[in-house]
Amino acid sequence: MDRRSFLKTSALGGTAAAATTALAAPAYAQGKRTLTMVTTWGRGLAGVFDAAQHAADSITAMSDGNLTIDVKAAGELVGAFEVFDAVTSGQADMYHGADYYFVGQHPGYAFFTSVPFGMTAQELSNWYYHGNGAALHDELGEIFGLKSFLGGNTGAQAGGWFRKEINGPEDFNGLKFRMPGLGGLALGKLGASVQNLPGAEVYQALASGAIDGTEWIGPWADEKAGFQEITKTYYTAGFHEPGAGLSIATNREVFDSLSPAHQKIVEIASAEAHQWNLAQFLNNNGAALQRLQSAGVKTLEFPDAVWDAFGKASDEVHQENMGDELYKKIYDDYQASLKASSGWIQKSESAYRTQRDRVLG
Amino acid sequence: MDRRSFLKTSALGGTAAAATTALAAPAYAQGKRTLTMVTTWGRGLAGVFDAAQHAADSITAMSDGNLTIDVKAAGELVGAFEVFDAVTSGQADMYHGADYYFVGQHPGYAFFTSVPFGMTAQELSNWYYHGNGAALHDELGEIFGLKSFLGGNTGAQAGGWFRKEINGPEDFNGLKFRMPGLGGLALGKLGASVQNLPGAEVYQALASGAIDGTEWIGPWADEKAGFQEITKTYYTAGFHEPGAGLSIATNREVFDSLSPAHQKIVEIASAEAHQWNLAQFLNNNGAALQRLQSAGVKTLEFPDAVWDAFGKASDEVHQENMGDELYKKIYDDYQASLKASSGWIQKSESAYRTQRDRVLG
Repeated sequence: MDRRSFLKTSALGGTAAAATTALAAPAYAQGKRTLTMVTTWGRGLAGVFDAAQHAADSITAMSDGNLTIDVKAAGELVGAFEVFDAVTSGQADMYHGADYYFVGQHPGYAFFTSVPFGMTAQELSNWYYHGNGAALHDELGEIFGLKSFLGGNTGAQAGGWFRKEINGPEDFNGLKFRMPGLGGLALGKLGASVQNLPGAEVYQALASGAIDGTEWIGPWADEKAGFQEITKTYYTAGFHEPGAGLSIATNREVFDSLSPAHQKIVEIASAEAHQWNLAQFLNNNGAALQRLQSAGVKTLEFPDAVWDAFGKASDEVHQENMGDELYKKIYDDYQASLKASSGWIQKSESAYRTQRDRVLG
Repeated sequence: MDRRSFLKTSALGGTAAAATTALAAPAYAQGKRTLTMVTTWGRGLAGVFDAAQHAADSITAMSDGNLTIDVKAAGELVGAFEVFDAVTSGQADMYHGADYYFVGQHPGYAFFTSVPFGMTAQELSNWYYHGNGAALHDELGEIFGLKSFLGGNTGAQAGGWFRKEINGPEDFNGLKFRMPGLGGLALGKLGASVQNLPGAEVYQALASGAIDGTEWIGPWADEKAGFQEITKTYYTAGFHEPGAGLSIATNREVFDSLSPAHQKIVEIASAEAHQWNLAQFLNNNGAALQRLQSAGVKTLEFPDAVWDAFGKASDEVHQENMGDELYKKIYDDYQASLKASSGWIQKSESAYRTQRDRVLG
């Protein structure tokens, strides 16, 4: 299906879609219209599918139903990892997903989800909304005919579920582990056999022994996925996704055909979903962790030697991509922003948290 | 001016504003409409006025100009601290401001900006958007005829500007210091002579010696305000506003007269402004701090004994308000949410940041 076919498959209302006036006004599609949003998420998958549905509902409500978003779970129209091609080709109008699933299309997409030893969620927001993040996302989008916005965030992800404890970096050697993106490539350098499975398939893979362990998101989403039924060893802090953004990407021709008001509605609804979703995960994780611990889950932290190995491997993965000019451009800008952001956060909020914990006990 | 007079002063389009149909459909004002937003900020005041303007622009753009927001700086229609009464009385349609300026109306409003030893910006988001925060904001609003949303956030505020170093809690005794809200009341318990001045008046008060010191926001906004021209002693972490939310409050009758689509536009635009503004401050603070230091500003941290005294005084201020039933209800819910939120953040993002700093140096 070509990119223009959306005009045929979208529901257009009474007014002609592309009437050219004497003043050559832009040819916005008028009247009621439905856009199809495919996602990388199983229907109802805690947090991530919620973010897609929340953004869709906001767009529909703010446009008074003139721009209705029809959300499809993975497999309902196309598979989880097929959404990128579905939208660039025009088979679907937009996707909601984690852009690091598409490092095969361009490794630079990793930065718009999360990279190992990279930004926290707040640092990502700073860069995206007030640094050059959004503009660099656009630069990637120009290659593929996409207009992307951040539209969700999981916060700092947990280290994940293991069948045995990790006492040193050598324990990753030969381990069959699910981890997408650049984090997965880094883990591969420690000898792990890394697999990239969509969320809806992870439970079965872990239960069957096809994988030895997995990261998914954090206590709340992991509990909903049910990993605690399979193993009780859970590492809380992780190196691989310190603040994973989710994206809403619209076929560029579809986006350009929207009125300025509807374009702004998509933009603001996506940004609001970023904050709403991050708060959703972080509001639910505390209670979920307590329930997991009550159910016998043992929480652990990786030893320093493992973090050192993670750090070295993560840098190697970045260096391997530096031959790509756009990757290097994004990397350099991202690192400069991270450094500027984190310094003040350390001096203010982190210093405050330390004192609050000390004084209140 | 009574609450209903907005219908006369607002710009209404061609359709009748309050026509009642045979089916008794809600009487939404139709057609183009302009709402007046008064603010607690001087025109162009860095960050805080920006948040008001950003939300206003988003509402205007998403509604295709059918709901236009006209932003007034402090003093243009009413003074900074008069915006609450202006909106509850119907003199203006909505305000953008820091709700802790209105603890005189109800002390519970403090929680929707920031309370000493309270939530960080992320913890506030968790509580507001996914805990009971927004519902409790509504409960306060019902008393005064307001519909409020968070619509900005400064992040963790700096300890502030002093003419001499603070070596112990006794150094606050007799100090004339600008600090609004419950933080100011806590500082008063240390013997400070606390003043509550709107932002636009602080520079002059400090320059003239009317006050000995002031907190304002953080490096970027403080630099724009110019305090470094007066003194060079700057405390970075503060106890008083660890993540200060800003609010957009609409006269309840005005809000109810909007169509559901326009109500949703106001809600989502406010929430998006909360995130946008927080990222604005945090993206700019790092570079501003470096410039301040290059200009000779000395950055310091309060000693532990001062933090201990802050903690004790902050708790005393809370206890003094517990006789108010709604204050106690908000306090209890807020503290429970803070505890649940902060535990996981400590185990995940904070643990990650510690390792990132250690490994990357």
